[in-house]
Amino acid sequence: MQIEPGKLLAGVNSPDDMKNLDALQLVQLSSELRQYIIDVVSVYGGHFGASLGVVELTVALHHVFNTPSDQLIWDVGHQAYGHKILTGRRDNFHTNRVYDGLSGFPKRKESEYDAFGVGHSSTSISAALGMAEASKYKQETDKHHIAVIGDGALTGGMAFEAMNHAGVSNSNLLIILNDNCMSIDPNVGALRDYLTDITTSHTYNKVRDEAWKVLGKISKFGPNAREIVSNFESSIKSFLLKQSNLFESLNLRYFGPIDGHDVNHMVSVLKDLKDIKGPKILHVLTKKGKGFSLAEEDQTKWHAPGTFDKLTGEIYKKVYETPQPPKYQDVFGHTLVELAEANDKIMGVTPAMPSGSSLNIMMKAMPDRSYDVGIAEQHAVTFSAGLATQGLVPFCNIYSTFMQRAYDQVIHDVAIQNLHVVFCLDRAGFAGADGPTHHGCYDIAFFRCIPNLVVSSPMNEQELRNLMYTAQLPENAGPFSIRYPRGNGVMPDWKKDFEKIQIGQGRKIKDGEELAYLTIGPVGNYATEASTRLEKEGLSVGHYDMRFVKPLDEKMLHEVFQKYKYIVTVEDGSIQGGFGSAILEFMADNDYQSKVVRLGIPDEIIEHGTQLELQRDCGFDPEGLYRTAKKLLQLTPA
Amino acid sequence: MQIEPGKLLAGVNSPDDMKNLDALQLVQLSSELRQYIIDVVSVYGGHFGASLGVVELTVALHHVFNTPSDQLIWDVGHQAYGHKILTGRRDNFHTNRVYDGLSGFPKRKESEYDAFGVGHSSTSISAALGMAEASKYKQETDKHHIAVIGDGALTGGMAFEAMNHAGVSNSNLLIILNDNCMSIDPNVGALRDYLTDITTSHTYNKVRDEAWKVLGKISKFGPNAREIVSNFESSIKSFLLKQSNLFESLNLRYFGPIDGHDVNHMVSVLKDLKDIKGPKILHVLTKKGKGFSLAEEDQTKWHAPGTFDKLTGEIYKKVYETPQPPKYQDVFGHTLVELAEANDKIMGVTPAMPSGSSLNIMMKAMPDRSYDVGIAEQHAVTFSAGLATQGLVPFCNIYSTFMQRAYDQVIHDVAIQNLHVVFCLDRAGFAGADGPTHHGCYDIAFFRCIPNLVVSSPMNEQELRNLMYTAQLPENAGPFSIRYPRGNGVMPDWKKDFEKIQIGQGRKIKDGEELAYLTIGPVGNYATEASTRLEKEGLSVGHYDMRFVKPLDEKMLHEVFQKYKYIVTVEDGSIQGGFGSAILEFMADNDYQSKVVRLGIPDEIIEHGTQLELQRDCGFDPEGLYRTAKKLLQLTPA
Repeated sequence: MQIEPGKLLAGVNSPDDMKNLDALQLVQLSSELRQYIIDVVSVYGGHFGASLGVVELTVALHHVFNTPSDQLIWDVGHQAYGHKILTGRRDNFHTNRVYDGLSGFPKRKESEYDAFGVGHSSTSISAALGMAEASKYKQETDKHHIAVIGDGALTGGMAFEAMNHAGVSNSNLLIILNDNCMSIDPNVGALRDYLTDITTSHTYNKVRDEAWKVLGKISKFGPNAREIVSNFESSIKSFLLKQSNLFESLNLRYFGPIDGHDVNHMVSVLKDLKDIKGPKILHVLTKKGKGFSLAEEDQTKWHAPGTFDKLTGEIYKKVYETPQPPKYQDVFGHTLVELAEANDKIMGVTPAMPSGSSLNIMMKAMPDRSYDVGIAEQHAVTFSAGLATQGLVPFCNIYSTFMQRAYDQVIHDVAIQNLHVVFCLDRAGFAGADGPTHHGCYDIAFFRCIPNLVVSSPMNEQELRNLMYTAQLPENAGPFSIRYPRGNGVMPDWKKDFEKIQIGQGRKIKDGEELAYLTIGPVGNYATEASTRLEKEGLSVGHYDMRFVKPLDEKMLHEVFQKYKYIVTVEDGSIQGGFGSAILEFMADNDYQSKVVRLGIPDEIIEHGTQLELQRDCGFDPEGLYRTAKKLLQLTPA
Repeated sequence: MQIEPGKLLAGVNSPDDMKNLDALQLVQLSSELRQYIIDVVSVYGGHFGASLGVVELTVALHHVFNTPSDQLIWDVGHQAYGHKILTGRRDNFHTNRVYDGLSGFPKRKESEYDAFGVGHSSTSISAALGMAEASKYKQETDKHHIAVIGDGALTGGMAFEAMNHAGVSNSNLLIILNDNCMSIDPNVGALRDYLTDITTSHTYNKVRDEAWKVLGKISKFGPNAREIVSNFESSIKSFLLKQSNLFESLNLRYFGPIDGHDVNHMVSVLKDLKDIKGPKILHVLTKKGKGFSLAEEDQTKWHAPGTFDKLTGEIYKKVYETPQPPKYQDVFGHTLVELAEANDKIMGVTPAMPSGSSLNIMMKAMPDRSYDVGIAEQHAVTFSAGLATQGLVPFCNIYSTFMQRAYDQVIHDVAIQNLHVVFCLDRAGFAGADGPTHHGCYDIAFFRCIPNLVVSSPMNEQELRNLMYTAQLPENAGPFSIRYPRGNGVMPDWKKDFEKIQIGQGRKIKDGEELAYLTIGPVGNYATEASTRLEKEGLSVGHYDMRFVKPLDEKMLHEVFQKYKYIVTVEDGSIQGGFGSAILEFMADNDYQSKVVRLGIPDEIIEHGTQLELQRDCGFDPEGLYRTAKKLLQLTPA
């Protein structure tokens, strides 16, 4: 389906084509750009609200600045669709997030206009400051370095670290605070309240105005008063203008807040800011979903709605005739509430992912026992550790890829102290369309080396429930991790009674001869598929769902290694140091000599695509498992 | 050597014994506590300046609060010696940091007064907030939760994440900002400038005072003026008191700054604060090294000076008759300057460890090309990535244990984008006396699963130089990591000419029969020692210094596996997923069947001790290597 851009937009093949547009044309271009995003995303899907919110900002930035020589970094990056469309990627924008198509995020390999690859939050100021310092060193005095960061991303600690550094540099850095009060869910925290406060003028602006007013009135009381006022005025002026703002406290010159949907006003402000040297911050107020009323009204729902009817706003959903398996995240969400109802020690913690993790189910049911701590993975983990010291049992839900950001806290604050924190790692394995920044490839390898930490993964919804049940039992009062993937499970009828699993105990799914699949997590279902197929061909293949990477079920492994000549390990994670390597360690330590083939994610950056496309490429889709077994078995002497 | 505490201190066996002391006695106790720290540390070594700086604060806190029911968390924790001495550990305080002795940091296992284990920076607010929220949930209304955090630790991003959360909680949390202008080195950044500013009253206090003064004068101009002033006063009051301060911006009530060496004033302020509900911050000014003039004058040198003459201040140094090998960190520091002189693209980056990493050598020689970014590992890495996008080659030096805190940035900002950043991981392997929070056990396992990243470790000073040389070559323009240990190398004559090493190329040190040591890093020298000893016994043992964990030298490994029946891998790192596992992966992938024994750090939390004591316990000191080989070889049929 060919989607036609508006007339002005059709002529913009690079930002050069925007330089000479007049005020009316900039408004027109913004309107066409917004419409084009709606047209394409409604048909092809993708992130939606964030890009609509920054349409005018995007137009203003590319109109005023000399990109790509001036460097523009979009924090997180799911708001960069307009940027992509204006920088030469309009006509294949519909391939966005599709296998072999454009990335959903800015990406250096994709375009010279993408100054820095993004995906995770709060990196833009650090990266832009690095570029700005490089320019200073190279004496490129005319270059501008711009980080566009949301108010949500600003709560991530590294953004603060970067501002602390930026404030003492004299770099030519412009931070644009894109303030829309939202992360994916509504943004939370004291900083949020502060931004609202300075925006709505309750204190800062009000006092500034009042001070001026009062001083004006007072000075009418005569020359004495005038002198007193005048002395005071200069000090209060410098104070109010320079010191009374959080950002000015960090020595960043603060400008704004200004309306982020008035493209021409922004153009004029940005032009002025070009001449102001040193680190500075422009506070821009935008609305997520701007221009599409339904998206403005329910911003979380329209963050990435899938495909929809752009006229009625109906979001298309596949209709099934039979009950479908639930999403793993929903199994987590409902099960946590069920467990918490029975165990009053259980608490829920999420860093800014209530809807993504389905912790919002508990937040609604038990608001006093569940926390959204903002984009703050590090804090989320150590805060959970603090809860655990008091005998509570926090379930801290962090996507596998974001757990990378709290790695030290897991080791230092939880594992070393052997505290009872349950980590639920959603989106483990391939994230799919979000691509390499979001794939959860590494967690098995980086968790498995941590002492005291149980590393587990369920093969299906029922096992997820049982692992969660097991993890909260007082007898298992240590760090416990459960990884599970994005997307749906395999059991339409998933809500079974809880059953305790012995820690470190796997289960034999199928006995076989010669070759066995050892699997961890939902890829075990591929082994079921492959072994059934092999069985039909008369080949008997065993299958063991290990459930735990750590501790390993050594009893079961002895049985396996004593029996099978060929072993195929399967995991939706890095095979460097992952589950398969744990099996190799067992084999070496126990002097077994089976032939072990490890299937999983190889040692390379895997791009975006559907989960199944990527698993196929890596050879661990059902077909890959089948072929690997066939190949090995054909090596067997008759 | 028995060290006698002062008379009052001798009677304090727990904080209970301090509750009834009067003002004079509190001063006296502080003085005795300070003297006791000086007496013990001068003889037994340890951290010094930080604890001297908080003597009065420690006394005041334990006098006012009801520890351990009230929970006191010392951020980082090397300032907690006074706390340990007052909480029942006075008489074995001399075992501090010694094998089997007290930990150098607060530790939950050691005492109920140690509410949270610490070591790394910036965790205290998160942990205390978790405890405070738990108390709220459990309706323990009388409990206090206190985080003592330095101005250096406050620059760590997670402290900001925690304040953002604390500001919207109504928890009974007291943050004590221990402001001494120092990390280990002088503290840097905009926050530092801000704290100095509010302390020296240049703006905040000045304007507050002036406002009051002016309003007083003006109101004398008559009833009209009085009314105007009165209206204005209430708004400016709330503004100045509530909003004009960075912490108040985050909705933390701010008190101070107060003198951190006036114990009785602190007692009175802390008593007042007990009655003020909600999150609050008390700004306390202290001097690192207080009361020992040399330590006050050179705070970096006296952070942890070793043993010294407490009267003359002479720091004892072993005197050697022959030249000794340098510290690895100094080889790094000098070599970096040498390389940077020849390659103008090289930059240096450290997160608050100029003296610990010896980057201070470059900071002195090339101030415009080297950065101390504060306690901010995450920012350090992404800032380096920003520099690298502009064609520069940053050497980013982060201790192995602190690299855990920048793990996501290494993956997301450097490896995925394949940027030319060189990571130098100092203190890899056992940190020694600092113990489990500081051991660099995990980096091989957590780095080896990251695509694009070279993982290397030198066996000696010359190899460190050559790896650094190799890493900065334009032909190797990707992420490169070099790990090396705390302490001294093995080559008194270390400054040899640079030699390029082929990436992924190991070196054969010694040919042998039947058994080979495969080593990574300086533990290779233990293999040399063991193989020499075995040779004397008539046993021929091979030794291969692999130099790279990734990529592996596959050619060499084929040779090794084709030749040797027994292979012993040796690493100063976790054997779960580490170097030895990489060797097992090679073996499995290539169908070799040697017997491989992996020596390294086992899957448990290893306490403190000297590096050699801990290596001995783990079986990879020279004796352990020797024994392992002997045991294996005796299994060999004659």
